[in-house]
Amino acid sequence: MGPHKEGLLRMSLLDGIGSPADVRLLDQAQVGELADEIRGFLVKQVSRTGGHLGPNLGVVELTIALHRVFDSPRDTLVFDTGHQSYVHKLLTGRQDFSALRRRGGLSGYPSRTESEHDVVENSHASTALSWADGIAKANELRGHGDRYVVALIGDGALTGGMAWEALNNIAAGQDRRLVIVVNDNGRSYDPTIGGLAHHLTTLRTTRSYENVLLWGKRTLRRSGPPGRFAYEALHGLKKGIKDVVAPQGMFEDLGLKYVGPVDGHDEASVERALRAAKAFAGPVIVHVITEKGRGYTPAEQDVADRFHAVGQIHPETGLPVAPSRFGWTGVFADEMVRIGRRRTDVVAVTAAMLQPVGLAPFAKAFPTRVFDVGIAEQHAATSAAGMAFAGLHPVVAVYATFLNRAFDQVLMDVALHQAGVTFVLDRAGLTGDDGASHNGMWDMAMLAVVPGLRLAAPRDEATLRDALRTAVDVDDAPTVVRYPKGAMGAPVPALEDVDGIDVLARHDAPAGATSVLVVGVGAMAATALETAEVLAAHGLRVTVVDPRWVLPVPAALTKLVGTYDHVVTLEDGVVDGGIGSLVGQRAREAGIGTPVQAIGIPRTFLEHATRDQLVGELRLRPQDVARDVLTALGGQA
Amino acid sequence: MGPHKEGLLRMSLLDGIGSPADVRLLDQAQVGELADEIRGFLVKQVSRTGGHLGPNLGVVELTIALHRVFDSPRDTLVFDTGHQSYVHKLLTGRQDFSALRRRGGLSGYPSRTESEHDVVENSHASTALSWADGIAKANELRGHGDRYVVALIGDGALTGGMAWEALNNIAAGQDRRLVIVVNDNGRSYDPTIGGLAHHLTTLRTTRSYENVLLWGKRTLRRSGPPGRFAYEALHGLKKGIKDVVAPQGMFEDLGLKYVGPVDGHDEASVERALRAAKAFAGPVIVHVITEKGRGYTPAEQDVADRFHAVGQIHPETGLPVAPSRFGWTGVFADEMVRIGRRRTDVVAVTAAMLQPVGLAPFAKAFPTRVFDVGIAEQHAATSAAGMAFAGLHPVVAVYATFLNRAFDQVLMDVALHQAGVTFVLDRAGLTGDDGASHNGMWDMAMLAVVPGLRLAAPRDEATLRDALRTAVDVDDAPTVVRYPKGAMGAPVPALEDVDGIDVLARHDAPAGATSVLVVGVGAMAATALETAEVLAAHGLRVTVVDPRWVLPVPAALTKLVGTYDHVVTLEDGVVDGGIGSLVGQRAREAGIGTPVQAIGIPRTFLEHATRDQLVGELRLRPQDVARDVLTALGGQA
Repeated sequence: MGPHKEGLLRMSLLDGIGSPADVRLLDQAQVGELADEIRGFLVKQVSRTGGHLGPNLGVVELTIALHRVFDSPRDTLVFDTGHQSYVHKLLTGRQDFSALRRRGGLSGYPSRTESEHDVVENSHASTALSWADGIAKANELRGHGDRYVVALIGDGALTGGMAWEALNNIAAGQDRRLVIVVNDNGRSYDPTIGGLAHHLTTLRTTRSYENVLLWGKRTLRRSGPPGRFAYEALHGLKKGIKDVVAPQGMFEDLGLKYVGPVDGHDEASVERALRAAKAFAGPVIVHVITEKGRGYTPAEQDVADRFHAVGQIHPETGLPVAPSRFGWTGVFADEMVRIGRRRTDVVAVTAAMLQPVGLAPFAKAFPTRVFDVGIAEQHAATSAAGMAFAGLHPVVAVYATFLNRAFDQVLMDVALHQAGVTFVLDRAGLTGDDGASHNGMWDMAMLAVVPGLRLAAPRDEATLRDALRTAVDVDDAPTVVRYPKGAMGAPVPALEDVDGIDVLARHDAPAGATSVLVVGVGAMAATALETAEVLAAHGLRVTVVDPRWVLPVPAALTKLVGTYDHVVTLEDGVVDGGIGSLVGQRAREAGIGTPVQAIGIPRTFLEHATRDQLVGELRLRPQDVARDVLTALGGQA
Repeated sequence: MGPHKEGLLRMSLLDGIGSPADVRLLDQAQVGELADEIRGFLVKQVSRTGGHLGPNLGVVELTIALHRVFDSPRDTLVFDTGHQSYVHKLLTGRQDFSALRRRGGLSGYPSRTESEHDVVENSHASTALSWADGIAKANELRGHGDRYVVALIGDGALTGGMAWEALNNIAAGQDRRLVIVVNDNGRSYDPTIGGLAHHLTTLRTTRSYENVLLWGKRTLRRSGPPGRFAYEALHGLKKGIKDVVAPQGMFEDLGLKYVGPVDGHDEASVERALRAAKAFAGPVIVHVITEKGRGYTPAEQDVADRFHAVGQIHPETGLPVAPSRFGWTGVFADEMVRIGRRRTDVVAVTAAMLQPVGLAPFAKAFPTRVFDVGIAEQHAATSAAGMAFAGLHPVVAVYATFLNRAFDQVLMDVALHQAGVTFVLDRAGLTGDDGASHNGMWDMAMLAVVPGLRLAAPRDEATLRDALRTAVDVDDAPTVVRYPKGAMGAPVPALEDVDGIDVLARHDAPAGATSVLVVGVGAMAATALETAEVLAAHGLRVTVVDPRWVLPVPAALTKLVGTYDHVVTLEDGVVDGGIGSLVGQRAREAGIGTPVQAIGIPRTFLEHATRDQLVGELRLRPQDVARDVLTALGGQA
């Protein structure tokens, strides 16, 4: 099914694209039509299913050009933080977006099971250049040196240390056909970044670059202070790197050929640039300027609104920005401002996620006390250790899954130096529709090995606020507060406090009944309470507790374990090496024979689905848990 | 006690240095004398105790200059991978080197318990700039903006991604008094790194730079091919960064003022450069060219020998290079060459540690199949995933403790993508005298959460060779082979193989005796065997097994657990979330009631000491373990 030029319907061009070969058959006029069709398709479909609209609208022409110039899958296309791969999906035979990001539907990221054109599924930033370097090295050794490897990376992702490590290596392989396409969608050039401002002026001399950026400057100026504030705050250090991708920047110093900048919405220009890069047959940077959300807002809408809409999406990851005012993030945001008023030594650190993690109110209240380090979790952790050394108490707020990248720094810089640094992990536990690499399920097991580290998993608003206040009072060890994505449930009050352990419910039973202790970790307290009701209905004596601070395992909890016949722990983290596992270990070390049944997320990567679907599949619903407990008790009896 | 000019003894200058203030009182002639005394002292002392001689001899004048220009501890000196802090120790009141790196003696790294002049104890590379950025930010906020923060970092450590993340942030703070001293001790400028070579020629135009480097070029040429090979291999990508630190490099593009290059052995010049940097009162790079091992080899020794001696020390970390031919590293080195002959798809990846990890023989046999990525563990892991995607099987060889820095990449790039990548972890377990950040005790607990990952802990030469061969045959998951530092014990043969579990010993006992299963993980097999003897002498029926592959926990092992009254696991890794903890968890999940006593390293940072001292203190000697098992059994009875 090649593309048919004179179809009866306007949508026929996209319909006719079954594979990249079809894209290559189009003439230049058709390419423009196809781009229009794709934009229309994306706006219609993605606004229905949700997803990363803006980033994909920005790469329509760029993706078309990539598939016209290169020959995927013979040539390899690698997308960094693949949320901008929707157009790529459309051009590689995947046009059913009706169940995007839903179980059984297309993934929101590249997926090897979907297509041979997809390579990297990891949506953590800054990895694409390393992937590309590895693939190019392998191609060379395996006699496929004539194949191209093309990495598409956003300008913001270049702030990640991995990207630097990769560039340094790519520069050393001058015979490898590796094309780095920098998708530069930044638009803010206000000289706020100290000494860089002057240099920016010097660098931005290329005429075409100026022209391409003109609209951005103009628009920004019109958008006025409020839009500007949010925009600038979001971009943070990104402006530093902007400098670097300018023509006279470091790439050529490193020995990488540089092509650009080129207008990313002029498909013919992008194609020309890519063909030039291809002809060089060595490592090349192609600098493409794009507009995120291009074509999203109808022309008649005003500029401020367009910016607002774009501002809803995180500039690098494309994740939605605005946290619910009453969700976990909203409570954190509010409590941080309160703490900030009381404690002038408390500062905030974010890795290019000021808004998504809820630090915007803090930044507004205390503009000099917030540090956006760019996509640079390692630096976030270690610079926080430095701040603690020099008398501050930094609160590093990140998505739980992204802390993985700073494990060594949390261990060796923060914990080893007994630095009072608080890490706040948003989106902990199951997040669902963003797929395997966004679930925040690794944090507790990973952090369980860190000496001195204290971790709280609050269960509701009151315990979250309390955990934060306690955390920032610790000045000789790292503290961690972790909570899930999204809406917060109703308050879960404690009946009593037993040596710091909250008792949430007690179900009595006749003498001689088996006694069960249900330990709910964090937001699993609600599940614990419902599980207990089912167990009580089966004649068991059940107590539900929430230790709130779960690392290290409180001695009081270990002691409590010994007073029950059976203990079940519930956590929304990987169960191997998790909290339940540790509770069992501590009990055994104390000579306590009570079996501890640890229930949580198995050691596996979870495919995209809704959170509820995952909870069901993983048998984490109260009914499932109760059944598993009863089975275990039956086995023991 | 100020310095006294006309003492009777030649060594009197150093004797008179009680604090940095004393260093500042010296005149220029005395400074030269002091430098000579310090060199004499270091050569004499360190050759006696062992330690990082070369790196410290390279920074004698530089460290003197730092203490004359800056006012520590008011100004903060941060040493990257602090093995080059010996001179700093001598100038800050610590001149008793008799027990260097021994329990009770001076640490081989900065240590906050030793001195208020020490800040960063972490000896993982590339962290200093992040520390400095954090301290400078805190100083500014706390009204100490007039204090200087000085980070001393080697040119090689700049390849680490963290350094890039930090530079990007430092450049954004033009009002902060932050001085980055790049200690450039590289000496190889042979144009082997493709396109960089041409650019190097363009960059290296500064006259003084040429002069300083002249000796290096000349010496290298005379040292001939063998020395040259080792040297170049060791430096690998480092040459890429060399480019960057040249005058016209990227620092000024980023907005960082640049001073240099300056001859690091001309104290007056270094002082002048530092004073210029200080006067700027903003972020500045000072580029200092030093000679590692300066003054080490007596002048009468020939040049080739001098290079050889220097070659023994790892260029970045200063760790000793030459592995024992018959130790774990030596066996790995040998088996890799064998595997390489058989399998043309097997390649090797190292993060600036070609020699220390034992890859030099492989590199010699298969020069195109080894990739030194620089100090860049993240890139090592992810580029390996790319290679696996494109048909190779990479073996990434690193020290166990350094894999921590690539946790996210092992999880999200390698494991999530089911990439056949083998990680070989040298120096796993207790290493001892290099202090807390060199013990390779985190790997098993950290990797236990990674889905699909398989980990082998071989116990002797035969099991190491077997593990490696098995590991490179796995093409759909990460494999890990980990082994300790140093000498390898005698072969530990298996009596029999029960479903893949090696049975190492069986001690019978009269009917009715309590049965104990001792599980020895890796090199702890020897301890397990001795422990079993003690237990058998107490009338217990004891079996000793080694599962060899411990992640995931073999089902056969879990089954075996259920056939004993008591199980004890022995591992040289952190016990929380470690192998024993998992064995217990799997047993409970299988409804097995047998208590599993997990013995290993507690969740704590260990101070420097010999390995034997640590083993004793941690109660990991067979007698201790046996006693703890008997206590546990007594408690149960």
